[in-house]
Amino acid sequence: MAGALIDNLQYANWSEKIFRQMRQGGVDAVHVTIAYHESFREMVLNLEGWNRWFEQFPGLIFKGTTAADVRLAQETGRTAVFFGFQNPSPIEDDIGLIEICHQLGVRFMQLTYNNQSLLATGCYEAEDTGLTRFGKQAVEEMNRVGLVVDMSHSAERSTREAIDHSARPIAITHANPAWWHPALRNKSDEVLRALTGRGGMLGFSVYPHHLKGGSACTLESFCEMIAEAAARYGAEHLGIGTDLCQDQPDSVVEWMRVGRWSKVIDYGEGSKDNAGFPPMPDWFQGNRDFGNIRNGLADVGFSGSEVDGIMGENWLRFYETSFGPVT
Amino acid sequence: MAGALIDNLQYANWSEKIFRQMRQGGVDAVHVTIAYHESFREMVLNLEGWNRWFEQFPGLIFKGTTAADVRLAQETGRTAVFFGFQNPSPIEDDIGLIEICHQLGVRFMQLTYNNQSLLATGCYEAEDTGLTRFGKQAVEEMNRVGLVVDMSHSAERSTREAIDHSARPIAITHANPAWWHPALRNKSDEVLRALTGRGGMLGFSVYPHHLKGGSACTLESFCEMIAEAAARYGAEHLGIGTDLCQDQPDSVVEWMRVGRWSKVIDYGEGSKDNAGFPPMPDWFQGNRDFGNIRNGLADVGFSGSEVDGIMGENWLRFYETSFGPVT
Repeated sequence: MAGALIDNLQYANWSEKIFRQMRQGGVDAVHVTIAYHESFREMVLNLEGWNRWFEQFPGLIFKGTTAADVRLAQETGRTAVFFGFQNPSPIEDDIGLIEICHQLGVRFMQLTYNNQSLLATGCYEAEDTGLTRFGKQAVEEMNRVGLVVDMSHSAERSTREAIDHSARPIAITHANPAWWHPALRNKSDEVLRALTGRGGMLGFSVYPHHLKGGSACTLESFCEMIAEAAARYGAEHLGIGTDLCQDQPDSVVEWMRVGRWSKVIDYGEGSKDNAGFPPMPDWFQGNRDFGNIRNGLADVGFSGSEVDGIMGENWLRFYETSFGPVT
Repeated sequence: MAGALIDNLQYANWSEKIFRQMRQGGVDAVHVTIAYHESFREMVLNLEGWNRWFEQFPGLIFKGTTAADVRLAQETGRTAVFFGFQNPSPIEDDIGLIEICHQLGVRFMQLTYNNQSLLATGCYEAEDTGLTRFGKQAVEEMNRVGLVVDMSHSAERSTREAIDHSARPIAITHANPAWWHPALRNKSDEVLRALTGRGGMLGFSVYPHHLKGGSACTLESFCEMIAEAAARYGAEHLGIGTDLCQDQPDSVVEWMRVGRWSKVIDYGEGSKDNAGFPPMPDWFQGNRDFGNIRNGLADVGFSGSEVDGIMGENWLRFYETSFGPVT
């Protein structure tokens, strides 16, 4: 079977149009964000919305919960949709909700989203105190049930402590190396070495604030960065997590940044003069453009099997060992 | 394989002691109540409690969601625990929660518990207006996902309308025929003919208020009633749903009856002088006593295969076709 194409992070304004574009682009599986700041009950409302889409468009998409679902997607010409949280808000203060969320199909959870959470510290806080008491318990429970720890928006020490405390490999689903583009959201070489050294996965983001040169970043620069990351960490630990927010109105990036925690606008990675979603680079406008990345990877010297790995097979191998109890 | 033993309704004060008694009694599967008046979030807390029991006692119990789990229970010497609601309160006013609850493993839901609900009328209301607008939609959604409609505590017209409106067979998990003991909770001959005529199942209750003679009811009288029901409706539509509330304090029967809907005590099937749980008949004190019922059924003339059917195989056949989308 051909290599699976997996985008391990999107938060689009979902619609039949986008589901059809995923088919046109050959996307076999996508990890979608279903919560930023939602409570448990609010997150369940988002699940209900997805259930309706699965009922409406069974020929395009279905709910993915296991690695085998990616192969099923390939065999049936559909896209398997995997759920994740960018913030632990849906588990509230209740460790029992980790297993409940896993039973509802959630497979990734960030311990923080930019801010301090009940579990750890986010990348925009001035002080990073690492994993909290609840955070350590939560990581152990996530390990037990097979809910992947995602540290994409977390601060340095918290990320290191999550890597160390977790008995299973963790993920940074959507970020780039800080040595390529020193944004607060990008990750230090030390973190990436620790992550991949423990078997974890890094998904490269195409969100312009994470790119060298922003929206003007070239495909060549992006792929050369991946080549350098492969040299440092091993190509088998690398994948894609575009952070595509297709068709979202700017009100959504405000929700992502501010939630309900602030009465004043926080511009996050943006600024007052550039508050909305930045334009995506011309070589990646959406789900039909993964071929450009595939070609770009070949052009910087990756072998065919390395390209297949980065485009999805590495995530698939990670799915195989991460989405349930240790066997 | 020997016939499965299934008790299709219990609400015990669960403990390791009771789980061990289920093993001693050879109970392969049990349908347990996880909500009377709970909101969605409160019901999820009850699920969390069960998850902890499953984690603590993996050698005794596991979560059942399919008919195959009953056979797995027989093969592994454990009890498969199936979840149900006695009231639709956990779906609140949200039809999307029906699929969510099914995804969480819930397999039975009563449309009412004694009172009027958002879906239908309960058996203690003075007026029975049948299925509501939401009730009809809910039955269709329950049919779609494979969540069984249970009308044990519903009023006559509502029960008839649920039987007629449901495209799939429904259940009365725990009640007896009114022609044997005319309690408001027991069911008319007309309802039982309609139920079984459409392929539905009746589970016989051993709760004393549903028994002729109450706690003093004899095993012979109980089994003769089942023989008469078999003559009227066909033995293949009959099973057991004891309504066992083992080890519950009387505060729990008050919660069952009054929930949060009344500031004054409602005695339900009891009375001011007899407000608590009534004592169970001497021939059925708990999970180790199913052999008495099995012997009693043989004594009133049932064949071996009929006894096996009533003790569990009939429920198992119903499980096989009821717990998921129509295939």
